[in-house]
Amino acid sequence: MKDFFIADAAKFDNELVTSFFVLTSIQVREKKQGGQFLSLTLADKTGLLAGTMWENFEAASSSCSEGCYVKVQGRIGRYQGKFQITVQQLRRAAESEIEPGDYQPATRFSVDEMWAELRGYVSRFSNEDLKRLVFAFLDDDEIASAYKAAPAAMRLHHAWLGGLLEHVLTLVRVCLAAAPFYPEVDPDLLVTGAVLHDIGKIRELGWKSSFNYTLEGQMIGHISIAQGMLREKVQSIAPFPEKLRILVEHMILSHHGKYEFGSPKLPMTPEALLLSALDDLEAKMQAMRNEFAASVAGGKDAGEVTDWVRSLDRPVLNSRAYLRGE
Amino acid sequence: MKDFFIADAAKFDNELVTSFFVLTSIQVREKKQGGQFLSLTLADKTGLLAGTMWENFEAASSSCSEGCYVKVQGRIGRYQGKFQITVQQLRRAAESEIEPGDYQPATRFSVDEMWAELRGYVSRFSNEDLKRLVFAFLDDDEIASAYKAAPAAMRLHHAWLGGLLEHVLTLVRVCLAAAPFYPEVDPDLLVTGAVLHDIGKIRELGWKSSFNYTLEGQMIGHISIAQGMLREKVQSIAPFPEKLRILVEHMILSHHGKYEFGSPKLPMTPEALLLSALDDLEAKMQAMRNEFAASVAGGKDAGEVTDWVRSLDRPVLNSRAYLRGE
Amino acid sequence: MKDFFIADAAKFDNELVTSFFVLTSIQVREKKQGGQFLSLTLADKTGLLAGTMWENFEAASSSCSEGCYVKVQGRIGRYQGKFQITVQQLRRAAESEIEPGDYQPATRFSVDEMWAELRGYVSRFSNEDLKRLVFAFLDDDEIASAYKAAPAAMRLHHAWLGGLLEHVLTLVRVCLAAAPFYPEVDPDLLVTGAVLHDIGKIRELGWKSSFNYTLEGQMIGHISIAQGMLREKVQSIAPFPEKLRILVEHMILSHHGKYEFGSPKLPMTPEALLLSALDDLEAKMQAMRNEFAASVAGGKDAGEVTDWVRSLDRPVLNSRAYLRGE
Amino acid sequence: MKDFFIADAAKFDNELVTSFFVLTSIQVREKKQGGQFLSLTLADKTGLLAGTMWENFEAASSSCSEGCYVKVQGRIGRYQGKFQITVQQLRRAAESEIEPGDYQPATRFSVDEMWAELRGYVSRFSNEDLKRLVFAFLDDDEIASAYKAAPAAMRLHHAWLGGLLEHVLTLVRVCLAAAPFYPEVDPDLLVTGAVLHDIGKIRELGWKSSFNYTLEGQMIGHISIAQGMLREKVQSIAPFPEKLRILVEHMILSHHGKYEFGSPKLPMTPEALLLSALDDLEAKMQAMRNEFAASVAGGKDAGEVTDWVRSLDRPVLNSRAYLRGE
Amino acid sequence: MKDFFIADAAKFDNELVTSFFVLTSIQVREKKQGGQFLSLTLADKTGLLAGTMWENFEAASSSCSEGCYVKVQGRIGRYQGKFQITVQQLRRAAESEIEPGDYQPATRFSVDEMWAELRGYVSRFSNEDLKRLVFAFLDDDEIASAYKAAPAAMRLHHAWLGGLLEHVLTLVRVCLAAAPFYPEVDPDLLVTGAVLHDIGKIRELGWKSSFNYTLEGQMIGHISIAQGMLREKVQSIAPFPEKLRILVEHMILSHHGKYEFGSPKLPMTPEALLLSALDDLEAKMQAMRNEFAASVAGGKDAGEVTDWVRSLDRPVLNSRAYLRGE
Amino acid sequence: MKDFFIADAAKFDNELVTSFFVLTSIQVREKKQGGQFLSLTLADKTGLLAGTMWENFEAASSSCSEGCYVKVQGRIGRYQGKFQITVQQLRRAAESEIEPGDYQPATRFSVDEMWAELRGYVSRFSNEDLKRLVFAFLDDDEIASAYKAAPAAMRLHHAWLGGLLEHVLTLVRVCLAAAPFYPEVDPDLLVTGAVLHDIGKIRELGWKSSFNYTLEGQMIGHISIAQGMLREKVQSIAPFPEKLRILVEHMILSHHGKYEFGSPKLPMTPEALLLSALDDLEAKMQAMRNEFAASVAGGKDAGEVTDWVRSLDRPVLNSRAYLRGE
Repeated sequence: MKDFFIADAAKFDNELVTSFFVLTSIQVREKKQGGQFLSLTLADKTGLLAGTMWENFEAASSSCSEGCYVKVQGRIGRYQGKFQITVQQLRRAAESEIEPGDYQPATRFSVDEMWAELRGYVSRFSNEDLKRLVFAFLDDDEIASAYKAAPAAMRLHHAWLGGLLEHVLTLVRVCLAAAPFYPEVDPDLLVTGAVLHDIGKIRELGWKSSFNYTLEGQMIGHISIAQGMLREKVQSIAPFPEKLRILVEHMILSHHGKYEFGSPKLPMTPEALLLSALDDLEAKMQAMRNEFAASVAGGKDAGEVTDWVRSLDRPVLNSRAYLRGE
Repeated sequence: MKDFFIADAAKFDNELVTSFFVLTSIQVREKKQGGQFLSLTLADKTGLLAGTMWENFEAASSSCSEGCYVKVQGRIGRYQGKFQITVQQLRRAAESEIEPGDYQPATRFSVDEMWAELRGYVSRFSNEDLKRLVFAFLDDDEIASAYKAAPAAMRLHHAWLGGLLEHVLTLVRVCLAAAPFYPEVDPDLLVTGAVLHDIGKIRELGWKSSFNYTLEGQMIGHISIAQGMLREKVQSIAPFPEKLRILVEHMILSHHGKYEFGSPKLPMTPEALLLSALDDLEAKMQAMRNEFAASVAGGKDAGEVTDWVRSLDRPVLNSRAYLRGE
Repeated sequence: MKDFFIADAAKFDNELVTSFFVLTSIQVREKKQGGQFLSLTLADKTGLLAGTMWENFEAASSSCSEGCYVKVQGRIGRYQGKFQITVQQLRRAAESEIEPGDYQPATRFSVDEMWAELRGYVSRFSNEDLKRLVFAFLDDDEIASAYKAAPAAMRLHHAWLGGLLEHVLTLVRVCLAAAPFYPEVDPDLLVTGAVLHDIGKIRELGWKSSFNYTLEGQMIGHISIAQGMLREKVQSIAPFPEKLRILVEHMILSHHGKYEFGSPKLPMTPEALLLSALDDLEAKMQAMRNEFAASVAGGKDAGEVTDWVRSLDRPVLNSRAYLRGE
Repeated sequence: MKDFFIADAAKFDNELVTSFFVLTSIQVREKKQGGQFLSLTLADKTGLLAGTMWENFEAASSSCSEGCYVKVQGRIGRYQGKFQITVQQLRRAAESEIEPGDYQPATRFSVDEMWAELRGYVSRFSNEDLKRLVFAFLDDDEIASAYKAAPAAMRLHHAWLGGLLEHVLTLVRVCLAAAPFYPEVDPDLLVTGAVLHDIGKIRELGWKSSFNYTLEGQMIGHISIAQGMLREKVQSIAPFPEKLRILVEHMILSHHGKYEFGSPKLPMTPEALLLSALDDLEAKMQAMRNEFAASVAGGKDAGEVTDWVRSLDRPVLNSRAYLRGE
Repeated sequence: MKDFFIADAAKFDNELVTSFFVLTSIQVREKKQGGQFLSLTLADKTGLLAGTMWENFEAASSSCSEGCYVKVQGRIGRYQGKFQITVQQLRRAAESEIEPGDYQPATRFSVDEMWAELRGYVSRFSNEDLKRLVFAFLDDDEIASAYKAAPAAMRLHHAWLGGLLEHVLTLVRVCLAAAPFYPEVDPDLLVTGAVLHDIGKIRELGWKSSFNYTLEGQMIGHISIAQGMLREKVQSIAPFPEKLRILVEHMILSHHGKYEFGSPKLPMTPEALLLSALDDLEAKMQAMRNEFAASVAGGKDAGEVTDWVRSLDRPVLNSRAYLRGE
Repeated sequence: MKDFFIADAAKFDNELVTSFFVLTSIQVREKKQGGQFLSLTLADKTGLLAGTMWENFEAASSSCSEGCYVKVQGRIGRYQGKFQITVQQLRRAAESEIEPGDYQPATRFSVDEMWAELRGYVSRFSNEDLKRLVFAFLDDDEIASAYKAAPAAMRLHHAWLGGLLEHVLTLVRVCLAAAPFYPEVDPDLLVTGAVLHDIGKIRELGWKSSFNYTLEGQMIGHISIAQGMLREKVQSIAPFPEKLRILVEHMILSHHGKYEFGSPKLPMTPEALLLSALDDLEAKMQAMRNEFAASVAGGKDAGEVTDWVRSLDRPVLNSRAYLRGE
């Protein structure tokens, strides 16, 4: 168990600490006066900590590499106004010593509650075929455990453990709120699309110790991975109505809404159109939220216009904070 | 009062009818055998009817021009499988003889009920400044009567009398349904944006006898017209908080969501982002609905993929009809 | 068997003919002098022929619709310089009476020879897994018979029966000619991509009596259809190396080379890059060839610049004819 | 009054100076050997100067923040080849001690002469309504004093005090020179557009102590701000001809010439077209001029091609210097 | 000499006329009642006239083809409200019988006066090398006679005989008016660019009997043709300063100002930038002028907004006519 | 002769070396403790080496500038883990002391063999005119020596001495392999285009001591330079068939295949289309090859996906290495 977190370094100034971290960089360097030392960066879900190991680091440096979990003993100090650690001992940690949730940012909601709420919506489907299809995914243990853990993205929005589930759940709620105003929309079909549209991300992304793309993710992409998963599940619960298969597959293929975002088809049905619009809205709203937080963290007032946001191609403004005069 | 509608021509084959129409084209032509005749097109909200006047048309042709309301007496007949009218008498109609709703397609909902519902949402605002601002528009008789009558567009979506109000009301409902899922969003501010975003259309579009753009509409556009109207109302209810004025003005300027659609700013606040996304969704969903109807009217089955839809850059499919096997 | 072709109408002027056609339009119309007649358009692979049936057409018009094969007896004549047929008898034809190749343009090469050549290339693969995979497609009777018949497109290039096979075969030949100059390229992998890249077209397109898109073709598209077919075949020949599966799948997904052409991924491997470039070249070269023929058919000299070609966004010039002074 | 300028530091090496500056950064830092010091950056219109204050800086650091004017006493020295100042005393300066022109780059022309020339052109208008309108702006003291001081942009072109007036005056001159060649152009209307097109910049930009965007500037933009100012002035001088109001408003809205540059309308009148073309030319020519100077300042010869200019998407060449062989 | 013009047909109704025309279409057709007749279209600079020749047309049809000048005798009449001619005799005309200016629209200015004015500007160059260069073009008889006759475009702007000279002359005048405001600009170099930038059009376009593109024009384009002509002239007047050659060549290559308009380089010098901006302005202003005329000719009031102008991607408004209330 | 290469510094640690280099930066700097020193960067084809000269550097710094070849004597040492040189003597080198191939990366193939192979293809042309034309270039000593030395680009692909010849030769080979599959293609014309398409690069690029653009290269570009060279050669071997000249010129002008890549024309002939497609393929394949090498050099495994490649707008994967499990 981890009982020291990087964000708390100030409370341990000049003290000796022992804890677990992810090793995000490790490098042997030359001392100016001759000889070598080990320069490294440690991480947990609360931040990054630079470290230096001056002696006896040969075993450590040969057994650990970037991405490893490590156990470290060292003294916290300050250099040029920033905290760092002078490492005395360092070894690779065993899997059993590690609670992944300590090392990566994670959703602030209860995964179990979110999962139960999501299943609840599906269990109320009136279309039995769609219910069978979605539960074929949610009852698949391998899929379920990945679905509960995966982030929704590498960065930009919901880039944390449980982020995929959190993103999908919000999307499902908004879909259900909006659907009644569009009589052309079949709500069960729409929610099926919302639950499955990003399921390819569980194979596109890796989130063990750090977030990254898998090779399949880069070569195939989550849209086409999801399509393949759909095909396999449909075969496994055959017979399944061909028409529903096509409509669900179409929602997956078109949910990015634009060719240049990697969707091979544009949304052609009311459900696909609604899903694509609300998914885009959800992602942008979350991106805005992140920028508000980052701007305050960077020293601006909450009610000020942020710096230029590259992913949105504009700066943004937290209107409520602005009105409150913050 | 108008008691003959063009769509009912088949019931009057070979009969003499007397009714009012909009004159949408009028032209003097040469007969092959010498002499002249009058060729004209009549319209009402149910369709178009070609007409011919062989004699004594000089007074008629000099007093009426395209866009006039006319009173016509003539005999219904068929030519090459289509109905037409041989006109015996034609004169310009007085304004008092005309019920504009007979000549242009109109919303199928009650304008009064929609108006009352819209006012109800505003009256429940907790922000008194925004309530004052929106009612300054809705209580302005000139604006109110135009707002109730205007179409939302020349074509593509809600291109009928009352279409603007219908479009806004649906948008307000969806905004209110979606807002609770986004805590950054101030619902009063959002609904203010929804009610006012398209108000410039009452000066951009003309809808007397036919739909057209005003000169101001073409040169200034409804976004900038609305901004000017906002400025004037804000002055008329001064003092009004500057911060709210900027946030409302920003929603108006950014609601098209893209520079190439004529928005001089991209949405920078949560309310502007949500409004822009749901407005775009509403317009596209209504466009899809129109295409479904047009496709069936053009002879396709309801469950077939439509022809290419130019404004959406794709064909569309009525998924519910497809599932029902229509 | 069909022994009259539309292109030969001039030889049968004023004669009575009996033959089979595709019915491409059928409409009951009003005669000017009262009463009705049947107006129709007949087609075979050599062209279109307008027809009129003046009497006793009720049974015909109720049993046949657009896209049907029909047997027709009538007299050839001319009207305004064009040949037409005055129909005396018309009935729906039985499938057994029809040789589809008579009704649609078809490749001028031998399908059997092309098929054998294609299989020959695959049989010489040194990679046994890829050989197994490709033959799992080519030995699948349903796939094979569709592959031999399908056109490569609705129009623009190889829009004829057998066009898909013809396009693929040329592409394979050019791939094999170019591969030796690029040592990074695995020729078996490249040819696998060439054989399978467009295989989704056998479900995207319909070519019975006329060329059209299937509903699945419009909603899913041939790229994603092919990806699904690949997944199914891979499962059916399991175990199959995952790495090869990803590389082949990537070639299929990226072969259009641009997002805006519906490829969800850009070519990332040497094989995918080479395949995409040569596929695009093949299609454009064939489009140029079509334009040269159409320009001469339209009355221009072979050595003149053609009219503007919309699909290529430029006019083109048959350089060899130009040099010969044609 | 300020009698030491940063560009003259070399003349004061090792001397004690006392002067006023803008404080552009201020930060308390840790000394390596323990304790703290104040690190700051001072600026005036001639450049930037790094400073260090080792003792007794608490009052200074608590009373001054970025953007303040300060009075500083310290000794000039060199560190790593650059001049810096070791500060002994620092306090916030009073407004009365400051001449803003000392702290920001300013036009090299006489503001009064430019202003008089501009008014002269307007006074010669033959259209009395336009003359009244423009003077309603120029005679408004608040507007006039901002108009004379504002830069034309944050960077890229005319980014100095008086830059707006300088830009407008050059534009008016070129407009008057070009107008006679286009008989469709009303010169009074054109010059009205030239004088007012950028007037929104006086609220879009802030230039007190440093150049920045106002919140209104970011949320509304100078085009729409100018449109609002026009509406208000038109009301204040009512009655004003509606047609002229629309034409002037259109010039303001369309002067950027492209949707993607934030113009909600494209130029539709001869005056709007001419204004937009010459405004773009003026801005690009000034940008080119800046690049020539920056290239020489960066060590290139005047007659060499400059480095890539991002804002113009090309490098540029001072052709006259190139011909002279510089 | 031509003494009947098509625009005057009404004055010759039912009369026999004899005149010269360009033959723009000729076709042998079948009569309904059997036999053949000749259908043709005649043109001169005032319009088009349909014609029919019922007998003895074999010699005519075999000796004349589209684009020929012909001498025609026939009777003017009306058919369906339009004038046409019943041809009695038709023969190919000799070159000597033809004044090309009668068959194509031509500039309304004196070509000789324009030419003299243009040469005057060049003769006042202070740069002797540029003067030599430009006169090497203007004194070349072949070039001069083509320069005086060529249109500036196939359509859109200055599409008439003498249009190239007219366009260049206006451009030179505006360049000379604008240059003094840009001290970086060398006026002789600028005017050299203005005179030579479009000189490739004399080989890109053909204007004998009708306007068309030459094969070289389509394959090479006027920009690269002009560059080749420049190279040849520079060689013929060697030695010529290399620096001037590069700067002039650069102006020619970059004058379209955008890659997508066929310029292989963007303007990099002050002269190239100014030339490109004013050339674009000139072309757009002339296009606007044409649209104003076409709109009035099409029945709109001069002060109304025109229909959508495809080439400008907007409608336009004649502001002066609008203000005058036309 | 150069007998020390930078890549071998480790073998000379602490030793005195004497060798030749290109001087890529030279700067006089202030020592912290007062006085000045010379800071410089040396380069050869194997890398860069930082250097410092503490004394007696006045003559050196005044006689040498960036881009010079220099002779240096100094001692190799390490600083912060990197090798550097403490210079004792430095002087400008004479041209005669320098073998340019030692200072820039060069092709790994024999230039003479490549040149002979290229000439061999041309000598087998059956079209004597094209053979004459191409040999007029290849037999021109000035062109030939530049053609053999020039790189194909500043970076991205074939950015080394001999790169142009290497690129052209591979392209010619692929052209000859592909041509037989396209009967519309004249192979002699195609190879002519391949040999000449990039010949403008010998004047666009400079490669003496380092790679750079010439002023003419930046202002005119290699496409238009090549066109000018073609015009001159055609004149020098007159008479040459005009049709061939146009077709060759068109291939040069259109070979970039897109307007935005600086081609003023799109490929309109079969040869131009094929040349443009294969040239683009060659460049992309070489870019991919470079990225594979750079990725391994940067520490990734050969079978891993590389980092994002900006010039290709995607990451890439060495598929063969991936399959081999590297």
